[in-house]
Amino acid sequence: MAVYTTVSDDALASFLAEYELGEAVAFKGIAEGVENSNYYLETTSGRFILTLFEKRANPDDLPYFIALKQHLSENGFSCPLPVAARDGEALRTLAGRPAVIVTFLQGLSPRVPNARQCRELGAGLAKLHEASATFAMTRQNDLGPSSWPNLWQGRAAIADELQADLSAKIDQDLADIGAAKSLSDDLPRGTIHADLFPDNAFFLGDRFTGAIDFYFACTDALAYDLAICMNAWAFETDGAFNFSKGANLIAGYESVRSLQASERSAFPLLCRGAALRFFLTRLVDWTETPADALVKPKDPLDYAARLRFHRTAKSIDAYGA
Amino acid sequence: MAVYTTVSDDALASFLAEYELGEAVAFKGIAEGVENSNYYLETTSGRFILTLFEKRANPDDLPYFIALKQHLSENGFSCPLPVAARDGEALRTLAGRPAVIVTFLQGLSPRVPNARQCRELGAGLAKLHEASATFAMTRQNDLGPSSWPNLWQGRAAIADELQADLSAKIDQDLADIGAAKSLSDDLPRGTIHADLFPDNAFFLGDRFTGAIDFYFACTDALAYDLAICMNAWAFETDGAFNFSKGANLIAGYESVRSLQASERSAFPLLCRGAALRFFLTRLVDWTETPADALVKPKDPLDYAARLRFHRTAKSIDAYGA
Repeated sequence: MAVYTTVSDDALASFLAEYELGEAVAFKGIAEGVENSNYYLETTSGRFILTLFEKRANPDDLPYFIALKQHLSENGFSCPLPVAARDGEALRTLAGRPAVIVTFLQGLSPRVPNARQCRELGAGLAKLHEASATFAMTRQNDLGPSSWPNLWQGRAAIADELQADLSAKIDQDLADIGAAKSLSDDLPRGTIHADLFPDNAFFLGDRFTGAIDFYFACTDALAYDLAICMNAWAFETDGAFNFSKGANLIAGYESVRSLQASERSAFPLLCRGAALRFFLTRLVDWTETPADALVKPKDPLDYAARLRFHRTAKSIDAYGA
Repeated sequence: MAVYTTVSDDALASFLAEYELGEAVAFKGIAEGVENSNYYLETTSGRFILTLFEKRANPDDLPYFIALKQHLSENGFSCPLPVAARDGEALRTLAGRPAVIVTFLQGLSPRVPNARQCRELGAGLAKLHEASATFAMTRQNDLGPSSWPNLWQGRAAIADELQADLSAKIDQDLADIGAAKSLSDDLPRGTIHADLFPDNAFFLGDRFTGAIDFYFACTDALAYDLAICMNAWAFETDGAFNFSKGANLIAGYESVRSLQASERSAFPLLCRGAALRFFLTRLVDWTETPADALVKPKDPLDYAARLRFHRTAKSIDAYGA
């Protein structure tokens, strides 16, 4: 759920007066994203999403995210397009917060993606990488490997409480990934989504209609984005790897952009790194969320199970390539 | 916020297959109502709201609410119209819960209604009463005067903690209203909304476009519905009575349906009863909500302030009639 800030009808009317979008005819808080307040906004000229950026968003990053979505839309990748007001600016202020209106994107997020959707998603991810190849802005990955030791610091005992001897394995993951740093530094880099989970991808039937929630987007290894998707799309809810989904994800990706030899050989380690990143951020949320909170944190052990798989993967063939 | 039950894309597709509404093209949980789960649903044939009834809803009452909305829509009062599936039934089951799809109603809820909106709302309420005059079903008001002593039982000390000597005044309110029971029993009765607060009313500009959330609707004195609206629409956020808003509310109502002499003379007591009903249910929520809950209960003292006004009102003239 994500409506933290209330916008009155009067404040909305004043805000909309800065645009060429007509007047509001419907306005409802929606449960989309988790960090910001989002509203379904219908005006006399169409349907939109209004986002108010809450305190976890770094205001300095917002121009990057907005420019990226504009660039992707202009280059044929389907995503919410930030709408500029009369003065040409899309990033504005409402209810004391940075705010943006974006176009409404049709589609539904799959709860349990099927193999055809994995193939479509792979192709969609490669198209995102292609469309962003000409995007000039860059942003450092705040949740890249250099951030992981800090996230892990002081949480070994909690990990061992969740699963016996887990902390030793996480230590080994960190050591192995640290030792291979030069390998990943040489991979093709570009703009990555970095959070393209099923709830951030829209489909009509099996057809991919676009991606939302670019608030982790950054400049990093392109194949790392595919590794994140491998973790998010090709494992079943019981933690089992689905080879068919993995194979379709890679095949879909390569139908648009071929992986280079360096990316193929680094792939198991990239998948392990991606699983580690989500394990660690979930572990932090797990330990920092009060026991009686209404929103339960996601289980870090989902990613401990994926790490177990990635540790044994000898090559990209294990993922269906 | 109100999304308690998650509906997967697959479950939604199976559910929609029972209707003639085409396929889903967008589906988002929305913050509307507080007791049930509500989704914005867009299909290839239009826009709708899908409601899943959660545990606080009594399944036996649902056919009444659905039939009422169908009756009102057919009789020219604008509200969400329950949509029947192919078999003619609007009330169905989804994710193990009673579920209904209703048409999408345009409009925005005013945060601070203006006097023109109060007049429109008064006229709208009277139209609701006229449109429901031919509605054959009845439902007892579960939150009528006979329920108030139970709500009050054991909460005098908490009331006095909130405001010194408050409990003695509430005792007097209950006694005065109890003594006047025969008066209210003789008033014109019919179907009332019973919860037509600004967040349940939609407007485009100052034009009333309809009402939502009929889940307190019941059979009771028509003028009591106007008394509820007087409490909800004609007091400022600081608790002060706004004579102009009150006058517009009554004038709007009487532009469609004239109040009878019995309703006019009972009006101050009806307003006092309505304020007492919301004071008591807020007091219950206040005492039963954990201190660290994410959703803060509404302040019962808002209604203690209204009660103070109503105790001094000598006649309906005090409300602007």
